[in-house]
Amino acid sequence: MTNTQVSLIQLDNYGPWTTTPEPRREVDLQTLQSRLFADIAQLVGARDGYAFFGRFDNIVAVTNGLDRGEHERIQGSLGNRYPVTASVSIASGDTPAGALGIASRRLQDAGSAQDSGRREILSGDPLPDADRGPDDVQIAHFDVDDATGKYTDQLNEFDTFIQIEQGYAALMKHMREAHDSLSFFVGGDNVIAVCSAMDEAAYRDAIDHVRERVGVELKVGVGRARTAQSAGMTAKHELERCREDGTAVELGW
Amino acid sequence: MTNTQVSLIQLDNYGPWTTTPEPRREVDLQTLQSRLFADIAQLVGARDGYAFFGRFDNIVAVTNGLDRGEHERIQGSLGNRYPVTASVSIASGDTPAGALGIASRRLQDAGSAQDSGRREILSGDPLPDADRGPDDVQIAHFDVDDATGKYTDQLNEFDTFIQIEQGYAALMKHMREAHDSLSFFVGGDNVIAVCSAMDEAAYRDAIDHVRERVGVELKVGVGRARTAQSAGMTAKHELERCREDGTAVELGW
Amino acid sequence: MTNTQVSLIQLDNYGPWTTTPEPRREVDLQTLQSRLFADIAQLVGARDGYAFFGRFDNIVAVTNGLDRGEHERIQGSLGNRYPVTASVSIASGDTPAGALGIASRRLQDAGSAQDSGRREILSGDPLPDADRGPDDVQIAHFDVDDATGKYTDQLNEFDTFIQIEQGYAALMKHMREAHDSLSFFVGGDNVIAVCSAMDEAAYRDAIDHVRERVGVELKVGVGRARTAQSAGMTAKHELERCREDGTAVELGW
Amino acid sequence: MTNTQVSLIQLDNYGPWTTTPEPRREVDLQTLQSRLFADIAQLVGARDGYAFFGRFDNIVAVTNGLDRGEHERIQGSLGNRYPVTASVSIASGDTPAGALGIASRRLQDAGSAQDSGRREILSGDPLPDADRGPDDVQIAHFDVDDATGKYTDQLNEFDTFIQIEQGYAALMKHMREAHDSLSFFVGGDNVIAVCSAMDEAAYRDAIDHVRERVGVELKVGVGRARTAQSAGMTAKHELERCREDGTAVELGW
Repeated sequence: MTNTQVSLIQLDNYGPWTTTPEPRREVDLQTLQSRLFADIAQLVGARDGYAFFGRFDNIVAVTNGLDRGEHERIQGSLGNRYPVTASVSIASGDTPAGALGIASRRLQDAGSAQDSGRREILSGDPLPDADRGPDDVQIAHFDVDDATGKYTDQLNEFDTFIQIEQGYAALMKHMREAHDSLSFFVGGDNVIAVCSAMDEAAYRDAIDHVRERVGVELKVGVGRARTAQSAGMTAKHELERCREDGTAVELGW
Repeated sequence: MTNTQVSLIQLDNYGPWTTTPEPRREVDLQTLQSRLFADIAQLVGARDGYAFFGRFDNIVAVTNGLDRGEHERIQGSLGNRYPVTASVSIASGDTPAGALGIASRRLQDAGSAQDSGRREILSGDPLPDADRGPDDVQIAHFDVDDATGKYTDQLNEFDTFIQIEQGYAALMKHMREAHDSLSFFVGGDNVIAVCSAMDEAAYRDAIDHVRERVGVELKVGVGRARTAQSAGMTAKHELERCREDGTAVELGW
Repeated sequence: MTNTQVSLIQLDNYGPWTTTPEPRREVDLQTLQSRLFADIAQLVGARDGYAFFGRFDNIVAVTNGLDRGEHERIQGSLGNRYPVTASVSIASGDTPAGALGIASRRLQDAGSAQDSGRREILSGDPLPDADRGPDDVQIAHFDVDDATGKYTDQLNEFDTFIQIEQGYAALMKHMREAHDSLSFFVGGDNVIAVCSAMDEAAYRDAIDHVRERVGVELKVGVGRARTAQSAGMTAKHELERCREDGTAVELGW
Repeated sequence: MTNTQVSLIQLDNYGPWTTTPEPRREVDLQTLQSRLFADIAQLVGARDGYAFFGRFDNIVAVTNGLDRGEHERIQGSLGNRYPVTASVSIASGDTPAGALGIASRRLQDAGSAQDSGRREILSGDPLPDADRGPDDVQIAHFDVDDATGKYTDQLNEFDTFIQIEQGYAALMKHMREAHDSLSFFVGGDNVIAVCSAMDEAAYRDAIDHVRERVGVELKVGVGRARTAQSAGMTAKHELERCREDGTAVELGW
């Protein structure tokens, strides 16, 4: 069993802000969003967590090891440096999707994402140290097999992008529905999934599903650890092993 | 007819760099990628262009109005500030997909994206001023109708994300196949498309296609101008008009 | 004669903001300030201008070639991405100090830097194109002779820093008082000065003054051009020539 | 007695890099330096340390509470995201200047700052937990009395800057020579000093010295704590008390 601590970081009333008093320049919004995400990635990463940009106005982070004070610091740091604020909701559970469901509901109970009166909520509780174990987080790092040779070096860049996106859309849906796992595109041809306690057969099944559904061939390395950073680094090494050995699934345990 | 100038900015040999000599920390890669994109967005935006993060290692920009010297400056600025370099390929054409196809081919002809000897290529030519017109760029700004009310405030954040992603995956494929247009998710529930000369019926058709295919309801504002920034700002205002009037498609001309 | 266009970018009501409702974390302020400066440097630099961090809450830029619209864009971009806003005042004159004096007075006339009601002022006018010439901007790039060998590799880093700072403090005062020129420390052992029409004797005199005053040995390369970027690049090349030839002053004309 | 842990972060071979193969654009160097500093400030700040930009290529940080692994992470993160690398040297001692002296010497012993073969040194040892106490770090936060009213709202911005700089130059030298303390300008009219165990008389003396030397009137709040962040926050509150009560020195103990 995994025991993933998930934090949902939701910008407060962001949609209305982007068009008030009139629509803001798109390049500034793109810059704001991507830098804000980079800052969260660094702040969460300083404590061995992982953050995913997702929709940018709703960022999901795996935060095993970050206590409430560190969440306050992240929230405060954003408020000190950006024209928008963020609400943060922390939850944990047997599955990442379950944890995120709880975190989502807590924010929803506190008010709408577009409620101008709901600001800088911090709700939910981090895992007590006593409940944490060495295999709490399971991270899978997928990539597309030979994406450069098959796509990037052959196709219109947008057609390459379509292949990657269709692969990602199929994978994210399957992993959520079949395994309560959360998969995020992280650039290039890479997808990182925060997983429940999936075994090798489950990963093979996911890869088969994507191939059958959209014709994209994936491979995956998987790690387990006390923190996302550590599990994710194992997953990367296992993915390198796939590359060297021509295998499709490698588990780091 | 549109006359879109597209620039493909491809990081040189990035994939191998991320795992050499061993896999680099994911949070650092996420930070590097999103900041590098933000910088490109600002540099391109300073001359009224638009940049889209796409796959992060292959960034597509609409650059009508940027000459060769400005592309050199962008390339040089990245090389001065990041541990990786970028190759840049410029092309224009009747349709955005056509232009990107030419730009992609030029880079491919110069060498593989993972060829360690191919570095800081700058190929292709910007539009001569004489060939530029007041309606060269057509930008459509889509969003999901009442995404906050229907999804964000109701669902597990990941299920909201799945809805947005399935909508995006369907739209990007349709717009490419039916209209040689390039659609990019830009955060929240927003998609910006760089379009060929599509008319109202074509936009209605795209919206119908996505609704039928994945059940996601879109609306869209569209602008035309000499530059992406100007066309995109009109598109935003038209999208606001959809919101106020309850319409699905508004064209700014 | 030089004809320098100077822009003073002053954060609105920044001091009070840093302590309201209570003192903000210093690391966040440091991050905010240095990133905001970096953004201004890039925005001004995209049009061949130079920006200097100065006091961070009052940034001085040499903006020959930037029109009013570009100043509006910079101001708007800061407002879209930071929790603080900026007022901007543009002026030009025979000497950089004269121009900055006018720009300063205009902001002061509009209200105090700590007046919460004074926000996003944009005052003053850029040079008309017709008044611009090929030698409008004179930039001098100073460094400390063999700073690494004499200081960095020998002393406590703070004692090295004291040497550099005392040299800078002496130089900035002399250049202002004797030549109405504005000198800015730019890191390492480098000072960049925006100069009036100083000749070789004037530069020798400045170097002598600093040596006599605080015992720090400087050398300097100087360039003249239509823009700061171009004059500054010539100055750098001339400074390289000092290094190679063992000279103290090199003028690029 | 204080027990300050100081880390010297020195960019490797930075000077030569800035001019190889030819001088790099100054705006890119300014951007690189200020962002690199901001990243260090955040990384050090995530563990309650303080970083000061100093000369930008030699950054001094107060790092009580950061162990060797965290220094490695900072060093690795810079190497992953910038085109330059950094060497790091850690030392502690009764006085900040003493600690920085040891840290400086260790780097010097490993090679010149401009030795292309010296790269990513990490030397020295953090304080063992057992040796850390609740008053190890003493931070003083100075500002110029009524700088806005007396200078910013009255003078040419450069003349204001000269006042602040002359005040800083006098203070930094006095604090180093009389108290082995390290003072850093941090923007606006603020100077933060990392101090030895100075008492109220010593601070009064420093303020008198600066007034007599250059006519600039300072006030100061001082804090003591286990970490720089905590001592610095106390110092800010004490400085607010000076402002409210019209006093010149307030100690938070």
